Amino acid sequence: MNTRAAAWAYLSRVAQGPCAPLVELVRAVGPEEAARAVRGAELPEVLRARTQARRHLDTAERDLALVERLGGRLLTPDDEDWPEWKLLAFDGVEPRADRESAPPLALWVLGCGLVAELTERAVAVVGTRAASGYGEHATSQFVDDLAGECWTVVSGAAYGIDGAAHRAALAAGTPTVAVLACGVDRAYPAGHGRLLREIAKEGLVVSEYAPGTPPARHRFLARNRLVAALADAVLVVEAGARSGARNTAAWAARLGRPVLAVPGPVTSAASVGCHRMIRDGEARLAARAADVTEAAGPVGVGEPESGPARRLDGLSSRAAQVYEAFPASGSVGVRELSEGSGLPLNSVRGALPVLEMSGLVDSDETGWFRR
Amino acid sequence: MNTRAAAWAYLSRVAQGPCAPLVELVRAVGPEEAARAVRGAELPEVLRARTQARRHLDTAERDLALVERLGGRLLTPDDEDWPEWKLLAFDGVEPRADRESAPPLALWVLGCGLVAELTERAVAVVGTRAASGYGEHATSQFVDDLAGECWTVVSGAAYGIDGAAHRAALAAGTPTVAVLACGVDRAYPAGHGRLLREIAKEGLVVSEYAPGTPPARHRFLARNRLVAALADAVLVVEAGARSGARNTAAWAARLGRPVLAVPGPVTSAASVGCHRMIRDGEARLAARAADVTEAAGPVGVGEPESGPARRLDGLSSRAAQVYEAFPASGSVGVRELSEGSGLPLNSVRGALPVLEMSGLVDSDETGWFRR
Repeated sequence: MNTRAAAWAYLSRVAQGPCAPLVELVRAVGPEEAARAVRGAELPEVLRARTQARRHLDTAERDLALVERLGGRLLTPDDEDWPEWKLLAFDGVEPRADRESAPPLALWVLGCGLVAELTERAVAVVGTRAASGYGEHATSQFVDDLAGECWTVVSGAAYGIDGAAHRAALAAGTPTVAVLACGVDRAYPAGHGRLLREIAKEGLVVSEYAPGTPPARHRFLARNRLVAALADAVLVVEAGARSGARNTAAWAARLGRPVLAVPGPVTSAASVGCHRMIRDGEARLAARAADVTEAAGPVGVGEPESGPARRLDGLSSRAAQVYEAFPASGSVGVRELSEGSGLPLNSVRGALPVLEMSGLVDSDETGWFRR
Repeated sequence: MNTRAAAWAYLSRVAQGPCAPLVELVRAVGPEEAARAVRGAELPEVLRARTQARRHLDTAERDLALVERLGGRLLTPDDEDWPEWKLLAFDGVEPRADRESAPPLALWVLGCGLVAELTERAVAVVGTRAASGYGEHATSQFVDDLAGECWTVVSGAAYGIDGAAHRAALAAGTPTVAVLACGVDRAYPAGHGRLLREIAKEGLVVSEYAPGTPPARHRFLARNRLVAALADAVLVVEAGARSGARNTAAWAARLGRPVLAVPGPVTSAASVGCHRMIRDGEARLAARAADVTEAAGPVGVGEPESGPARRLDGLSSRAAQVYEAFPASGSVGVRELSEGSGLPLNSVRGALPVLEMSGLVDSDETGWFRR
């Protein structure tokens, strides 16, 4: 048993979902030292209060063994495969009491695909559980067209639109990622047990909750933030007046991901939420897949004429921090950027592709340099 | 035979649709003098060229007699019933070679209703001739709800959405106005002969073209501008990729009328134009009648806190001209405002309700005064 892995697993169960101060602590002192501090309650008051109830739980070894037996793993910021680029979106998002805007501490993953790779070009396709025939049909049409352009389909594995999105992706042979509001060992909803097994085989089943964690309302809301974060755009196919899909859309907006909604008949209750979002400017209208991919397109593309100052505006605070660590001329390595910026290696690695796609930096055999 | 009425009828046939320089000439010298000048070709070059082909036609007496026999009349800016308030929208609209943005010179009208009164609170409901069952159903639902709040329904009497809008208005007992691209004595389209007779009986059939004028492509485009002008908002229920309804919507935008479009299934060709307009910001999404009436709501309402300077911005140049003719304090009559502004009495009468609803002026038994 790797003690660092065990520390991550322990912290994941103690955190049970988004916990910004714990993420900060781990970033500052590393997982093992953080785990020690949590166990001993040697913590600032805010963190002590939030870890008090579960700090005595230590099922790390059992959890890691269980997930390994299921063909899965615990993915952490230590791993090359950590989707750092996507999770940078949380930087600079104002915290709110009711919706903690922290990145996940770690991710429990089933499936052989690489998380960072599969989510590099991804659209979240979500919607109401009470989908109409039209909604399911529209979902498969959008997913088919997205698959044709090699986009990964992220969703929440719920009944209705989510399930239709995953099924259409599996049928079209494009990767699909299910983000759960419970442990990856639990089949929820129960009727989607087989679908989840197929997703794990062909794509990925992901959760920030430790094995065995049951679904709960606040976990669905927290899960929605990960669906939005792991995608480049969120497409709401159908949403009733009070659909959870609008929560995912709100998260997307906070994280800077474009939100699109599919219109439908005005006579259909399943489209009321989509129409309201479009009317109120919370979502753009998507009538075809191209509307989605144009919105989701890579960072910086489409604005080649904008200068560096302009392009810096769109960067997360961490990416900007990495950019500032570059010398005015000459090449540097990732380690020097880490030292210069004061950010961990992994954050630097996550920020570099963002800076590269923004046209701010480039690399060759000598290292990274400003353009 | 009233020689002034005959002059209007003569000019209407010579103009054949929008003709800004002729409208200006009539405003300046009156219809009889303008008719004399046109007949004798004693005109500026631009007007001589545009009236040359038809200046010898004088069927005024026959036209007036024909329309009277059909239970109609020729409505002119001389009449109390002239929809001056609505037609003020043309003031300040930049002329364009391909779309002459002039108000009509006069209107041939069938039906007993008053044009100014029936269009005071009006929504244009338009759309593709190739309407789907969904489109016709949505049309009748919107019209039913608009009828419940006493809105007049303006449309173009075409097959498809237009016809459905008129029929639903007749069924709901709310006034409906058909604006034609041919003479009011012609049943076009032929299959709508009976519908047009019913509209003339219960509402109004209106055209700027003299009796007998056949429909033509450029007349449909010119007609669309009147549909937009006579309404407070334009609702496009269904529009294909190349539907004429988008021309009406473009006119509405030029005339400062809100444009709304009804979404539909993304799988329906009849909704492609609506979706495109919503996506591109040319139309707001309308999922229910309240979306339309909120957009169409009376001038100035909803902005009670804005000062006079702010509110003046939204006025047509003629309304602003009338406003400037007010003394800083004390009351004035309509004639003094006409003299002060240099505008004809009818324009002043048309502008006063606009200024009143904007909260800029008010009236009591002593006359009109600034607020």
